[in-house]
Amino acid sequence: MSYARRLLDTYASSLNADADVLAAAIDALSDCTQACVADTEADLNEADLAEMVTCIRLCLNCADVCAATMGVVARQGEYDPNVSRPLLEACIAICSSCGDECGRHAPHMPHCRVCEQACRRCEQACRELLAALK
Amino acid sequence: MSYARRLLDTYASSLNADADVLAAAIDALSDCTQACVADTEADLNEADLAEMVTCIRLCLNCADVCAATMGVVARQGEYDPNVSRPLLEACIAICSSCGDECGRHAPHMPHCRVCEQACRRCEQACRELLAALK
Amino acid sequence: MSYARRLLDTYASSLNADADVLAAAIDALSDCTQACVADTEADLNEADLAEMVTCIRLCLNCADVCAATMGVVARQGEYDPNVSRPLLEACIAICSSCGDECGRHAPHMPHCRVCEQACRRCEQACRELLAALK
Amino acid sequence: MSYARRLLDTYASSLNADADVLAAAIDALSDCTQACVADTEADLNEADLAEMVTCIRLCLNCADVCAATMGVVARQGEYDPNVSRPLLEACIAICSSCGDECGRHAPHMPHCRVCEQACRRCEQACRELLAALK
Repeated sequence: MSYARRLLDTYASSLNADADVLAAAIDALSDCTQACVADTEADLNEADLAEMVTCIRLCLNCADVCAATMGVVARQGEYDPNVSRPLLEACIAICSSCGDECGRHAPHMPHCRVCEQACRRCEQACRELLAALK
Repeated sequence: MSYARRLLDTYASSLNADADVLAAAIDALSDCTQACVADTEADLNEADLAEMVTCIRLCLNCADVCAATMGVVARQGEYDPNVSRPLLEACIAICSSCGDECGRHAPHMPHCRVCEQACRRCEQACRELLAALK
Repeated sequence: MSYARRLLDTYASSLNADADVLAAAIDALSDCTQACVADTEADLNEADLAEMVTCIRLCLNCADVCAATMGVVARQGEYDPNVSRPLLEACIAICSSCGDECGRHAPHMPHCRVCEQACRRCEQACRELLAALK
Repeated sequence: MSYARRLLDTYASSLNADADVLAAAIDALSDCTQACVADTEADLNEADLAEMVTCIRLCLNCADVCAATMGVVARQGEYDPNVSRPLLEACIAICSSCGDECGRHAPHMPHCRVCEQACRRCEQACRELLAALK
């Protein structure tokens, strides 16, 4: 069980979404940040860098947006749908784009295959949280 | 002239918004991140902490969202309206909420007056960028 | 197996430390960031906030330092001991302090017990990486 | 006057360094984060990407370390020399390396000239803060 899941179980305040859905999103956001940071580094190791520029930029955007979304989603005590909803929409969009771009490279670059999986899972977890939010 | 403004002038790629509007947003996002981090610390110094909890949470959210938005907005080479637009909307919403909450404390807490100004300016700069984006 | 571990296995470049030690550090840094963000939120839910101020500040510092260290450690292609070594030392120090403070609250606050565990594991993983670095 | 400088003037708590030195460091760290994020983007626009890989990695490291250092330095209420000193040393080292690398490109790449200046100023401001810390 992740730290986030165990921490959410201890929250005194009421949550604005099911704890399982929320914890799954926090974990997926945290993992996707990690994967995008590591994939950027792996991209920079590739011989054909011109081929990787789009992937690098999308991974940098994805890491930044996932990290910020993780923070906002974890701070349930000041939940505001006018912030959380568009933020999750932005996160879903960048995870989708970054997953697609990594997917293009996945057949010949194992690092992009791993990152694609992290992006897909994060996109799905954010969609489920967005649907579950009050 | 800020580093961002001077750097944007050197970009070889075409920008997706007027360089002045873009640089003003990057500067305001950077300043608002700084102000919210410092105001969180100032809030934690206050005697009546129960009064400051909402302000602390909003400042933490605002700092996270502004920092991520700064990165995405600066990476003009992979501009995607499906990411940038909702991200700027989330940023405008949190700057507005954080500015309002800091404004409530501003009459008796000078640190919140400063942070309110940073939030208001960032909200305005993000609105102008959102309107200018292709 | 974490995304970082799977990604490291695909790196073409030679690493500056054993891949298991490196991946364990990246995972622990990522988890500790997540735990400290969530514990800050849990601290802000407590009734006796004056008791939690030190814990909040340490968690904020720990989250920031762990996130930055994760990035630097993952970017093995530009390894510089003059950066990585003091950064890991700072990270070990803040994980130790934050773990101690959370440990003080752990008997009566389950959220701090969880965060203490994340800090202790991260401190240990950073110590092992520091010892393993070339 | 920057937001940080104005905010520091309002702090009730005693600071662990001269307010001018502290505010100069916070401003320089914030500016250097901004410059390194923007320079990474400018680097990715260059035709000869193989020439820019080191610069990109150093800018990414510098942005991460400066952002974390800004947060820790701003949170004066929980000052710990065992954290702040090595963190500032890591920050000085990465600002120095990143400034040197940008300086190599500066004669023919105006964006690296701007980033070099931000790194040099940040290195100097961190040195002054390190010397001034209690």
